[in-house]
Amino acid sequence: MPHIDLPEGLPGLLSLLAYRPETAGPLSRLAEVLLRGPGPLERGERELIAAYVSHLNDCAFCAGAHGACAAAQLDGGAAVVERVRADPASAPVPDRLRALLAVAAAVRDGGRAVTPDHVAAARAAGATDTEIHDTVLIAAAFCMYNRYVDGLATLTPEDPAMYEQAAARIVAHGYDALPAL
Amino acid sequence: MPHIDLPEGLPGLLSLLAYRPETAGPLSRLAEVLLRGPGPLERGERELIAAYVSHLNDCAFCAGAHGACAAAQLDGGAAVVERVRADPASAPVPDRLRALLAVAAAVRDGGRAVTPDHVAAARAAGATDTEIHDTVLIAAAFCMYNRYVDGLATLTPEDPAMYEQAAARIVAHGYDALPAL
Repeated sequence: MPHIDLPEGLPGLLSLLAYRPETAGPLSRLAEVLLRGPGPLERGERELIAAYVSHLNDCAFCAGAHGACAAAQLDGGAAVVERVRADPASAPVPDRLRALLAVAAAVRDGGRAVTPDHVAAARAAGATDTEIHDTVLIAAAFCMYNRYVDGLATLTPEDPAMYEQAAARIVAHGYDALPAL
Repeated sequence: MPHIDLPEGLPGLLSLLAYRPETAGPLSRLAEVLLRGPGPLERGERELIAAYVSHLNDCAFCAGAHGACAAAQLDGGAAVVERVRADPASAPVPDRLRALLAVAAAVRDGGRAVTPDHVAAARAAGATDTEIHDTVLIAAAFCMYNRYVDGLATLTPEDPAMYEQAAARIVAHGYDALPAL
């Protein structure tokens, strides 16, 4: 049961966006710019970073939602998302993305956990400064969204089809449309 | 030294806002709405929550900047901010704010660390649902800003006067003006 009196029938972040429209706008805009706006990382790669950090933070709602968005936009689909969750070191992703996932895992541990070695490994695998920047900010942002969703104990659907349907709407319409869904 | 090639002469978050204008807008807007927009918590209380979470996350830049903003807007000024950093349990703040600081500390540990007991204690001290919501979101947001600032190893000024001057500009002009500062 949620910790506060949220609108009924809405899961996870959607219940919070409906509860507080003042903060819903900036939170949706940030997700749109981070995960779908202009940038060097592909949309599927950004969603994979979001899903992986959410998994590490044990946030089932965000891991489900962004895992479905990643699966819908990545070569290899859901199987790749599952392999990354289980073990990024052996998952079938390019070395550049693997090194960026390691940066994201460090950000999840804390800002000071990101070392020059993490960054050097990402650069050696071909990552640019902007890709490293965007990876750090996406990972940091999901340390916010995950805590927001679970810190108020919002509802977490268990049916994977719910996440797949939400992902299809997000891929088609973007995050700015979320508060109205 | 920052992990990526950031504009010189700008500290902390300011260097990141200048580096990536696409994400600077939503990040500044979120700070403005969270810390200064319409809401039941006073601006000084919100800045105190931000400064306290930043202190727990060992983010000297955000703790300095938001500690100065809290000091400028709270009864009791910098002495209260210092007492909260050292020990919220004995700090001279109202019980309602003390209970909300405990909620914020739990959010910092992780979304699932917020228990029904934390929320019940805040309610018993007079906090409303919206105050609990806003506290959780501010604490979660600073788990993002702190990781963003330190995850890219931005510069941290040591002179307290720098933070006091920045706080004076923020109190006067708000966070939307930040990228142009």
